[in-house]
Amino acid sequence: MKFSFKNDYSEGCHPRILEALFSTNLSQQGGYGLDDYCQNAEISIQEKINNPAAKVFFLSGGTQANLTVIAAFLRPHESVVSAQTGHIFTNETGAIEATGHKVHAVQSADGKIKPQQIQEILDAHRNVPHQLKQKLVYISNSTELGTIYSRTELKNLSAFCKENDLYLFMDGARLSQALAAETNDITLQDLGQLTDAFYWGATKNGALLGEAIIINNKELQGDFGFHLKQKGALLAKGRLLGIQFQELLHNDLYLSLAKHANVQAMKIKEAFSKKGYDFLTETFTNQIFPVLKHSEIEKLAENFDFYVWKNIDDDSAAIRIITSWATAAEVTDLFIQKINSLK
Amino acid sequence: MKFSFKNDYSEGCHPRILEALFSTNLSQQGGYGLDDYCQNAEISIQEKINNPAAKVFFLSGGTQANLTVIAAFLRPHESVVSAQTGHIFTNETGAIEATGHKVHAVQSADGKIKPQQIQEILDAHRNVPHQLKQKLVYISNSTELGTIYSRTELKNLSAFCKENDLYLFMDGARLSQALAAETNDITLQDLGQLTDAFYWGATKNGALLGEAIIINNKELQGDFGFHLKQKGALLAKGRLLGIQFQELLHNDLYLSLAKHANVQAMKIKEAFSKKGYDFLTETFTNQIFPVLKHSEIEKLAENFDFYVWKNIDDDSAAIRIITSWATAAEVTDLFIQKINSLK
Amino acid sequence: MKFSFKNDYSEGCHPRILEALFSTNLSQQGGYGLDDYCQNAEISIQEKINNPAAKVFFLSGGTQANLTVIAAFLRPHESVVSAQTGHIFTNETGAIEATGHKVHAVQSADGKIKPQQIQEILDAHRNVPHQLKQKLVYISNSTELGTIYSRTELKNLSAFCKENDLYLFMDGARLSQALAAETNDITLQDLGQLTDAFYWGATKNGALLGEAIIINNKELQGDFGFHLKQKGALLAKGRLLGIQFQELLHNDLYLSLAKHANVQAMKIKEAFSKKGYDFLTETFTNQIFPVLKHSEIEKLAENFDFYVWKNIDDDSAAIRIITSWATAAEVTDLFIQKINSLK
Amino acid sequence: MKFSFKNDYSEGCHPRILEALFSTNLSQQGGYGLDDYCQNAEISIQEKINNPAAKVFFLSGGTQANLTVIAAFLRPHESVVSAQTGHIFTNETGAIEATGHKVHAVQSADGKIKPQQIQEILDAHRNVPHQLKQKLVYISNSTELGTIYSRTELKNLSAFCKENDLYLFMDGARLSQALAAETNDITLQDLGQLTDAFYWGATKNGALLGEAIIINNKELQGDFGFHLKQKGALLAKGRLLGIQFQELLHNDLYLSLAKHANVQAMKIKEAFSKKGYDFLTETFTNQIFPVLKHSEIEKLAENFDFYVWKNIDDDSAAIRIITSWATAAEVTDLFIQKINSLK
Repeated sequence: MKFSFKNDYSEGCHPRILEALFSTNLSQQGGYGLDDYCQNAEISIQEKINNPAAKVFFLSGGTQANLTVIAAFLRPHESVVSAQTGHIFTNETGAIEATGHKVHAVQSADGKIKPQQIQEILDAHRNVPHQLKQKLVYISNSTELGTIYSRTELKNLSAFCKENDLYLFMDGARLSQALAAETNDITLQDLGQLTDAFYWGATKNGALLGEAIIINNKELQGDFGFHLKQKGALLAKGRLLGIQFQELLHNDLYLSLAKHANVQAMKIKEAFSKKGYDFLTETFTNQIFPVLKHSEIEKLAENFDFYVWKNIDDDSAAIRIITSWATAAEVTDLFIQKINSLK
Repeated sequence: MKFSFKNDYSEGCHPRILEALFSTNLSQQGGYGLDDYCQNAEISIQEKINNPAAKVFFLSGGTQANLTVIAAFLRPHESVVSAQTGHIFTNETGAIEATGHKVHAVQSADGKIKPQQIQEILDAHRNVPHQLKQKLVYISNSTELGTIYSRTELKNLSAFCKENDLYLFMDGARLSQALAAETNDITLQDLGQLTDAFYWGATKNGALLGEAIIINNKELQGDFGFHLKQKGALLAKGRLLGIQFQELLHNDLYLSLAKHANVQAMKIKEAFSKKGYDFLTETFTNQIFPVLKHSEIEKLAENFDFYVWKNIDDDSAAIRIITSWATAAEVTDLFIQKINSLK
Repeated sequence: MKFSFKNDYSEGCHPRILEALFSTNLSQQGGYGLDDYCQNAEISIQEKINNPAAKVFFLSGGTQANLTVIAAFLRPHESVVSAQTGHIFTNETGAIEATGHKVHAVQSADGKIKPQQIQEILDAHRNVPHQLKQKLVYISNSTELGTIYSRTELKNLSAFCKENDLYLFMDGARLSQALAAETNDITLQDLGQLTDAFYWGATKNGALLGEAIIINNKELQGDFGFHLKQKGALLAKGRLLGIQFQELLHNDLYLSLAKHANVQAMKIKEAFSKKGYDFLTETFTNQIFPVLKHSEIEKLAENFDFYVWKNIDDDSAAIRIITSWATAAEVTDLFIQKINSLK
Repeated sequence: MKFSFKNDYSEGCHPRILEALFSTNLSQQGGYGLDDYCQNAEISIQEKINNPAAKVFFLSGGTQANLTVIAAFLRPHESVVSAQTGHIFTNETGAIEATGHKVHAVQSADGKIKPQQIQEILDAHRNVPHQLKQKLVYISNSTELGTIYSRTELKNLSAFCKENDLYLFMDGARLSQALAAETNDITLQDLGQLTDAFYWGATKNGALLGEAIIINNKELQGDFGFHLKQKGALLAKGRLLGIQFQELLHNDLYLSLAKHANVQAMKIKEAFSKKGYDFLTETFTNQIFPVLKHSEIEKLAENFDFYVWKNIDDDSAAIRIITSWATAAEVTDLFIQKINSLK
């Protein structure tokens, strides 16, 4: 059977999480997030982001997080600005629109958006009341193309949003990998200050499932529990989410796992680079997008699974290689050997 | 610390499930339900309900199941009929209305609905096109009041729905407990034949989380995956759901667990009965609703946790005692001793 | 051809309105409500309700007014309380639910609701966040059963709503008929003070179409135009609405027309009363609901059209007789002759 | 006061419509579209489009028509393809998204879309079930940029839609002006055959208000009345719409009015052309978009009102001149004199 680099949720979970599930199994706990573990995890997160006034809510998945947040924050005539590559724009089966809100897309080669692009959307929607009122900017970090925002970029976006009465919301499905990137200069404390809300993903970083929504903006915290319940996102055994986050936060396990994933990806990236291959985007996280000839792709695919991401021209395409907490260094080495055999 | 009879999701999960999570942990699997375990579990369910043409979808919770099913099955002008005690009517924060559909409630003392009551709703909505078109009947089994439908009742409802072009959908959050009741005469095969769709709950029967939506009506199967994704109900690591259902179905573990829960409840019921207490409803599942004086409730509450369900008069109230797969026989015995001390 | 007492929108419009359409026809005006007539009509309404800070929006119909207001005022987890006879609960094809909001119904024999009934709904929804948060009380005046609120009743409702952080919204499809009732003691100024918003109907009082939404609560005024546009309620030729309201407000034409309608109904009511007939509700507006034997109903129906409203028992039913600005006194007299011939 | 070329809904309505309102005013008619005039108008339209099986529904406005049709035709996971210039994409305050459906935009310089562009959208949405299922193609004729489809273009679009299981829906807010264009080769019969549904606008062609939705596809006709009511689009006095359409259809008044509007626009276009001005798009309907220097725009604006549509460069912008049934030939001549004075 081939080893799969298709995604970072192919395996179960980190052993420490299984152990924690075992050791807590028979403790009776309140339902729907009113358990000790969720409460502990909330406190840990408040500390890490240095915002004791933040509210933290745990739920099962990223699409669920995005749709619940956006439906809760916006009024019916308000809309969202996203990169055209944004997960909410392309890969959530219209989940945001299904709650009644339009997503305006801005072109982006690297998955990131700039204040000027948001300004252009605002400028194109001045015909009150015939056009929507933009109210929330959605960014992903790391992005769907593996790239990350710099601290300066994030500060500029945050300042722009404040000036223009826009909420800034970060999709952190792969936030840990962004924070663990060697080129990263954003801290969790920055996120506690520069965003109105963000979600921090565990599903793609060693948990069985689980994302934590963190709401910094106090005006957006009230009644959020109602929205969670209404969207079917409030788990009866919320403990399952609390235990996992507690474990991932303990001794910064989340960071070790993300670093491991990134390191594997960077080793592979280096192997491709040495051989002279180009990449669709320049990334320092656990996703890389090397551009190969079709024949080379076929050769790699003999032993490994991955997605062909985008056709570049008649001869070549970008593939996506994604590593995880579970990618053994030995497998990485085998893959590099294969790469080295390509030309 | 008091033992809690507040609900059947206070603990983690049955040990066999934890073991299965361990043993499968590093197997690489497809995401979003395309894993071996979900596929095996689907086949097992098709066999048990004797409907190989059924489609099975796994997701995290009951509210999520209800809202996804109803939003997928109905067109905008179609509505739902439910008992006034139905979970969708009272305890899901308007989740169904949030997808655009009204729920008509019929009065019910025992949590069940009868064809005649549906007929009355239909008769009151003849003013086309100024009134909604009823299209789906929602029932729970066991109900929110612990009661169960008989096979004859279910057959009559099913026939009525077919005659009136209505879908019959069963909320089975506690279906296993219904099937395990000593008074039950409904089989899984009946459900495969008499309902258009139903969901089968695991969260309240020993799993960490998980419900299986089973769609029998072929016209309703197409494109259902889109709806799951749009509502944020499609887990990246669907394996977590598949593994648990596989385990619960193996050697009918689901039935043993439900029987265990029911047996504990029946022992407690007998203890109350012997002492001459009445009940809000006559139940044979894992929920009982004895009516006690306030002073008696306080006394029980010294050592045990439970919900006061409904005030009966100035002196007395019905409490809800709910048992589970995890309720040790020893705890039941202690509780019975306490009951026996009441008068 | 039979004369119809089926409703108060069977004819075109009052001649003064047609004349106003003629005389203004070629004046070029701004679109979408930005015309002189809408602006004049807004000022007239502000004056009549003695609230210069109120905002007024004109649109085509009552269902449209109800759904636009409720969708604009509520957040996703907030719900509406209405009488079970309320138009939004029974006769708008789920328009409110289609915008995502549940309507809780309270029983009402006369179409009105009392603070105590709202309190009971609030009390039944304390399980945060599993239940909806009630936020808006919807009342109709005159009601769907022709009755009207007294000033004291309205003041009590208004005070209750303020205490409980609920909006009070009045459906005034037949508000003019309520104000014109001999038993009425509510003034337009009261409405400017005691409601958060109300709509004032013209369709059923001599206009071709048109309702005016008046928003007193300043917090609810902002951005309302966006909601109107989004719901398809913003007429390109808003002038059509402005001209009609301007005309109906001029010299209180609205009141003359409503009084005329009421007087015709009261003459008919008196005729039925003298003959000893009972009524479903005691009304002083343009709707009456006499209870007749089926044979009597058939006899009346030989020459007149009306709705059989509700079966009372095997022998008798309540019919609805509705008069309007266009009901000629001569027709009323003919109908009374027919009534007098019944027994 | 300046004459306005800002839009084609600045005046009231054609005198023949006012006369018809007068002459029918006191006839008692059924409400909600069940009047003689709506029924006659439906038959006339069925004849004109040569499709006796078509169903016709009248309502107040274009946004209302678009949102009601799209919400009625689509299931939750289905989406719409439109030109980026499409009214639903830019100028309806997210009305379509508010009903839960995404609108995918394709770039278009002339307001029209081509099968190849739709194909590209389809190709980019193959990741079932993570992406939306495109189901309806929305086109405008004449477009928001004044251009029209040729019969060949429409046939190709229709064939493409049939092959790809897509509905073809035409927004005909200015359909009459398209049909009346000298370059037009599409007939009403073509529309009865090549579209699944279209709406035919009267508001912008001499009526006070009114659009007719014509549904050719029999599968989409059923229950449409429910959707109209639910969206607040069913007028109590539907007669107002029926009378106007009856009058506009009588002796093809709609065509005379549209031709008059087009002729005025073409005279103005010729005047600009002779002076050497370019246009944003090449149009033959009642909208033209000449490109002028800012100083020239200011000069024209001394005596005439119009919108500055789009900045072309630092020196020049395209303006929009729109004529109507009410644009007197004398006014056109005055405007042409002004144009001739520009250089």
